[in-house]
Amino acid sequence: MPHPVPHLVTAQSGPLLELEQRILDSMPAIERWFRMYWQDHTPPFYGSVDLRNAGFKLAPVDMNLFPGGFNNLSDAMLPCAVQAAQAAIEHLCPDARNLLLIPERHTRNTYYLTNVARLARILGMTGLEVRIGSLSDDIREPTTLELPTGETLRLEPLVRAKNRVGVAGFDPCAILLNNDLSAGTPAILRNLDDQVLVPPLHAGWTVRRKSHHFASYDEVADDFAKLLSIDPWMINPYFARCSSVDFQAREGEDCLSESVDLVLTRIRAKYKEYGITDAPFVIVKADAGTYGMGIMTVRDASEVRDLNRKQRNKMAVVKEGLQVSDVIIQEGVATRETVEDAVAEPVVYMIDRYVVGGFYRVNKERGIDENLNAPGMHFVPLAFASSCNLPDCNAPADAAPNRFYSYGVVARLALAAASIELDRTAHLLPAPLAAGAAALPAVAAVG
Amino acid sequence: MPHPVPHLVTAQSGPLLELEQRILDSMPAIERWFRMYWQDHTPPFYGSVDLRNAGFKLAPVDMNLFPGGFNNLSDAMLPCAVQAAQAAIEHLCPDARNLLLIPERHTRNTYYLTNVARLARILGMTGLEVRIGSLSDDIREPTTLELPTGETLRLEPLVRAKNRVGVAGFDPCAILLNNDLSAGTPAILRNLDDQVLVPPLHAGWTVRRKSHHFASYDEVADDFAKLLSIDPWMINPYFARCSSVDFQAREGEDCLSESVDLVLTRIRAKYKEYGITDAPFVIVKADAGTYGMGIMTVRDASEVRDLNRKQRNKMAVVKEGLQVSDVIIQEGVATRETVEDAVAEPVVYMIDRYVVGGFYRVNKERGIDENLNAPGMHFVPLAFASSCNLPDCNAPADAAPNRFYSYGVVARLALAAASIELDRTAHLLPAPLAAGAAALPAVAAVG
Repeated sequence: MPHPVPHLVTAQSGPLLELEQRILDSMPAIERWFRMYWQDHTPPFYGSVDLRNAGFKLAPVDMNLFPGGFNNLSDAMLPCAVQAAQAAIEHLCPDARNLLLIPERHTRNTYYLTNVARLARILGMTGLEVRIGSLSDDIREPTTLELPTGETLRLEPLVRAKNRVGVAGFDPCAILLNNDLSAGTPAILRNLDDQVLVPPLHAGWTVRRKSHHFASYDEVADDFAKLLSIDPWMINPYFARCSSVDFQAREGEDCLSESVDLVLTRIRAKYKEYGITDAPFVIVKADAGTYGMGIMTVRDASEVRDLNRKQRNKMAVVKEGLQVSDVIIQEGVATRETVEDAVAEPVVYMIDRYVVGGFYRVNKERGIDENLNAPGMHFVPLAFASSCNLPDCNAPADAAPNRFYSYGVVARLALAAASIELDRTAHLLPAPLAAGAAALPAVAAVG
Repeated sequence: MPHPVPHLVTAQSGPLLELEQRILDSMPAIERWFRMYWQDHTPPFYGSVDLRNAGFKLAPVDMNLFPGGFNNLSDAMLPCAVQAAQAAIEHLCPDARNLLLIPERHTRNTYYLTNVARLARILGMTGLEVRIGSLSDDIREPTTLELPTGETLRLEPLVRAKNRVGVAGFDPCAILLNNDLSAGTPAILRNLDDQVLVPPLHAGWTVRRKSHHFASYDEVADDFAKLLSIDPWMINPYFARCSSVDFQAREGEDCLSESVDLVLTRIRAKYKEYGITDAPFVIVKADAGTYGMGIMTVRDASEVRDLNRKQRNKMAVVKEGLQVSDVIIQEGVATRETVEDAVAEPVVYMIDRYVVGGFYRVNKERGIDENLNAPGMHFVPLAFASSCNLPDCNAPADAAPNRFYSYGVVARLALAAASIELDRTAHLLPAPLAAGAAALPAVAAVG
């Protein structure tokens, strides 16, 4: 029987590392571990995870609770995505008829809007009536946008009636945010009655912290490492956190440089233990926020003391003008993957507890130790879900489906961590919409 | 965006009938109806449904709780099947490590064995360790069989230890039957402690009756018809039942001919109501049993009185020598579908509550009003699941994905009926293994 996974020309083709082989050999125990885990925890509605495969280490470096690249998934994975969305809706509100999707406010990014259209289509296939309610000031009446794919997307202004939100003539039972609330939490979404809002407001970036996520991930990775009898470091990057940093006022530099030093020292010890000759590095980035802003690669503690004005500006603000005051210093994990000679990292998409697809983020202008979520990037969709579901024990260990099974496993560990993270941070109150953040693009002038 | 469903050359290409259009238009209501239904009912572990699309009517004619054609599904549907199997295992026993699969006893039918291998593979992909325990007298030690696909299949003799069953060195928490127990219920499977056995013993053909299934289907179809404001007859074949029939002793012929007359009369009334000019017919078949044995097409009540010896022999016994005493007289639904000029009917496969694939059963030697499950049949796999999940509201109404969505809906109605049927018949005790049924093939000399 031919293997159902399409031939992939883009995957790393070197031998499978010992860790990947261990994951593959432990597949039954791993799947059972996840089954048991999801008996006691509620998965986020959806999520995407950026992974790095350094050859000696395979780890998540970012976990997005408002994934914006559904348009980059291969069409072949749509049926699985629909099936997973059906499961998610069953958990959320089985009697739902109507679902309101609230996207990011930028209405001119057609790549992003294609993601919204794709997501709406997946949700619509579950039998929900899906309408799209915009937070954008530009959308004052129903507006139909043309997409490069030939599709159209209808955005409608949000309407609040008492303690419910919807669009004109449409009172949804469930609301799905595809907006990470970097700009703050709009009043129109607060204090809703009887409407299910997912992800919850505290998943937005005014409350969420990467360091909370990775603290939860520490626990999940430790548990999972015991199951596999591996060093948890093999799947978990070290991190430290500094609060009260002000890049422009040069406050918090001591904490930054000490943390960089601490993390580099810990990496060096591990590299020595395993005979790894690479140069250690850390990634310094905003503890809240996304879109690849406010990120730098640091190889020595002195570098964070000598930032020039341009670098400080770049680090000080992220998407929607959100000020950076908390910073995470994360162990850098190099990526050994290349697609057509450009550096690449896998991104895995999940709905409910299922892997539903993925793609490579590829950036010709970046090195293996740099953030790839930056100008110059493009995406290569892969028939990822089949591979993540379907390891082939009879195939050579470095076959693409086997490699991708490992990726699906580590991505699901990050999803498991997110479920703990969201439970633990449920008491935190989201900040209101920032006064200056309403106009877009607030960050266009920065950097 | 190109539609994810592969181009299909084999589907009926005429205009979509009014019913199919109604189903398509009601997709949100339908999916919600199923979501709510499965909140209150437990789906069978798996099942397959034979459908007939007469152009004016679309109905299930058979519902198999031990589907044997997983090898006929397209490879592209495997990821969805694995995802569905994960959901089924979560419902069944989330802490399971080991699953025992018990197939039919015939060890020489390589088509069937390829189905077993495919099913074992799907289950293995969920992370279960799957071993195959055989009820066959031929399997007295672990036996590895070569399959035409190049795969191998290892069958092991069943072992009973106290109140648990397994194979040597393997004590499963869950047991999946792919054996419909036509030969009776072996002692080795009775009175098990703490082991989950699905489908339950009373789903086997010594207990199960098609008339029980279609009585449950009546209720489901009535409910669903209300939802769509359609005549339930559009999706439901009439049926009647005769017990204590003995074809060889010519007992029960009165009941048979009266029932045939009754069903034909009811069909004629409906044909008149809708202006259908086709000649009505009924299918007379064993109320228990499968494999397309003991089935005849009848156009007039007199035909069941004039059976010759060969016809009586053919009707008297079905698979594994099971004697026919209960008979179902089912409204015949012609199939208007053809594949390469041969008559075809769609078969839809489900795991848990999800459609996971399907194929056409094609038989060049049969007419549109005959049973196709007979010598001469072959199978044409279709990328069915995508179509069943993914109707395309913007495509012409007779596009293949839309037609297939209707098929998936009607198949799921039969699955819903099976869940009620299994609940209602749970008190019925399975009959022991028939004395003469152990040797195979018991029916080879018949007909």
